[in-house]
Amino acid sequence: MSQETQAARLERLARLPLRDNLRGLKPYGAPQLDAPVLLNVNENTHGVPSDARRAIMRAVERSLTELNRYPDREFTELRESLARYLGHGLSADNIWAANGSNEVLQQILQAFGGPARTVLSFPPTYSMYPLLASGTNTEYLSGERASDFSLSAVSAAEQVAAAAPQLVILCSPNNPTGTALDLEVVRAVYQASEAAQSIVIVDEAYAEFAHPGTPSALTLLPGRERLIVSRTMSKAFALAGARLGYLAAAPEVTDALRLVRLPYHLSALTQATAVAALEHSESLQANVEDIKRQRDRIVDGLRALGLQPAPSDANFVFFSGVQNPGKIWQGLLDAGVLIRDVGIPGSLRVTAGTEQETTAFLENMERLLAAEGR
Amino acid sequence: MSQETQAARLERLARLPLRDNLRGLKPYGAPQLDAPVLLNVNENTHGVPSDARRAIMRAVERSLTELNRYPDREFTELRESLARYLGHGLSADNIWAANGSNEVLQQILQAFGGPARTVLSFPPTYSMYPLLASGTNTEYLSGERASDFSLSAVSAAEQVAAAAPQLVILCSPNNPTGTALDLEVVRAVYQASEAAQSIVIVDEAYAEFAHPGTPSALTLLPGRERLIVSRTMSKAFALAGARLGYLAAAPEVTDALRLVRLPYHLSALTQATAVAALEHSESLQANVEDIKRQRDRIVDGLRALGLQPAPSDANFVFFSGVQNPGKIWQGLLDAGVLIRDVGIPGSLRVTAGTEQETTAFLENMERLLAAEGR
Repeated sequence: MSQETQAARLERLARLPLRDNLRGLKPYGAPQLDAPVLLNVNENTHGVPSDARRAIMRAVERSLTELNRYPDREFTELRESLARYLGHGLSADNIWAANGSNEVLQQILQAFGGPARTVLSFPPTYSMYPLLASGTNTEYLSGERASDFSLSAVSAAEQVAAAAPQLVILCSPNNPTGTALDLEVVRAVYQASEAAQSIVIVDEAYAEFAHPGTPSALTLLPGRERLIVSRTMSKAFALAGARLGYLAAAPEVTDALRLVRLPYHLSALTQATAVAALEHSESLQANVEDIKRQRDRIVDGLRALGLQPAPSDANFVFFSGVQNPGKIWQGLLDAGVLIRDVGIPGSLRVTAGTEQETTAFLENMERLLAAEGR
Repeated sequence: MSQETQAARLERLARLPLRDNLRGLKPYGAPQLDAPVLLNVNENTHGVPSDARRAIMRAVERSLTELNRYPDREFTELRESLARYLGHGLSADNIWAANGSNEVLQQILQAFGGPARTVLSFPPTYSMYPLLASGTNTEYLSGERASDFSLSAVSAAEQVAAAAPQLVILCSPNNPTGTALDLEVVRAVYQASEAAQSIVIVDEAYAEFAHPGTPSALTLLPGRERLIVSRTMSKAFALAGARLGYLAAAPEVTDALRLVRLPYHLSALTQATAVAALEHSESLQANVEDIKRQRDRIVDGLRALGLQPAPSDANFVFFSGVQNPGKIWQGLLDAGVLIRDVGIPGSLRVTAGTEQETTAFLENMERLLAAEGR
């Protein structure tokens, strides 16, 4: 769109009876630029393995014979598959899913947030949380982290008790910093929210990439009926294009979401694709292991270059100590490597790629930093 | 789920910090019963033609190679295809789409409705409108129709001027009654909403089944920047399982929806499927013609049985004059034919099926009415 048209459209938009809290906003989203090496939005760079692809094709072909019919509103087979995949004694009654974990979170905010209600999270964290709050007219409260972006159990619990929000969102591993929360933080937050009866969400979108021995908040679900653990198939399952987010919680939480979900919100194609991919979680797991190796290479490589990468349990690395992030970002893009400037001074974020992509990133970083005289 | 568990779950749900306006509600949705002849939810009973199926399989296979990547957030190719299909001089800039027209409507309400705002519609109409209003904390105002469920331009305009709502939804052809609105009503409503600057939505989910010569509200778009015409691929395109609703409006309306849509809300599979189906709209059109013939058979057949079918421009028929709708509904189900009791006294709604399905419905109706001694 030409600049002139864009200005004219903004002017015409301003004349529409838009909600006041949307006036002057710009649409969310990382720039969808094209580059040979895309390490900007934490996608799984390894693709869907061929056995999973074949299974998905067979499943889609079967679903085509009934595509004129509305899909199973209860997506029962998918909930059963997800429960089996998660383990931890969960059953289909504990599972809910939607078109990406953004929609899962939006439904949670529709059910438990809304006007005159608040949701607390701890920036820097996933940048969609305040937008999801705004989209559901829920007030967003920004909690505080330590200067190294860590969050202690004592600090988190104090802030939750003081704010008494209707909802708390903890992101673990945190995006954009990549570090997993100690479960002690989740326990303390849940306890501190007893008085306000807050819904406590642990967003574990990147959980599969955590270091061995990192426990999931799924282990805390028994006896905690206000706790929700959200997951996605976008990352470990390499299905960002298929849009499937889900959660595990007490069955009554899924009943609450049934009151706000749009009927038939999950297409037959989405259900078929996700079920087929879940049957091939083992071959996907091999790619996860390679991505973890590349992630660790990035952490080691950046440290050797004198930068400060945060400990990462995700498929991406957040690193500080960058003198001119804008220049490094552009220098990488000029070399065909797109990473993410998340707007935190002196810092950048990079997704772990294939071995080759990771090498391209590290070699260009070395070259660009050397050119800066470091 | 056993009755005991259900009661226990309801009790546990009541203990969660649910929003007040959701307390005591039950999830929306027609019962998903199984029967040999399903004529209850206005699906396209003719299925996806084989040429469209093959095109969809090829498109899905192509999208699988990039399924690890987020989809095109702007779904540009799909918007171009939809604009071409609609014609009327529309371009991709006029088009927006989401996972079913329910999500399209939800996004419109998020952008233009919300707390302290109202949406007016005219029951009996699509039963999701009040639920979408509730889900977005928009107040739902029930307008009135004449006793034969018709809505005149004068009456509609008076009600809009008096209520001064932020949004108006007109359903044409109306669900559940099946009759298309005269465009004079849309013109009058738009004019009456000038003072309140209301967004006026014409929901044309069933437009492709209208009688020849019935003009679409698409013809009214030029010069009316607050007018939105919504459509779906669930009905004429036989893609209820694929979940694709869309709209045509001024480009600034689509810009407003970009502020509330979840990023990447349309999966790569959905985009690929819809584009492929749109390339085969001609073979789908042949099925639409047959469905219209069956719909007219139902109208004629029910009239011959002494009932009062409403004039239908949709793929379903609403009929009154039924002495015991619950008994007729059950009698049909016992014979393997599932239709819909929409809760209007003395009335039922039936979807036009294949020739065979339509015959099964009409023959059973004749038998059941004869048994009642009519």
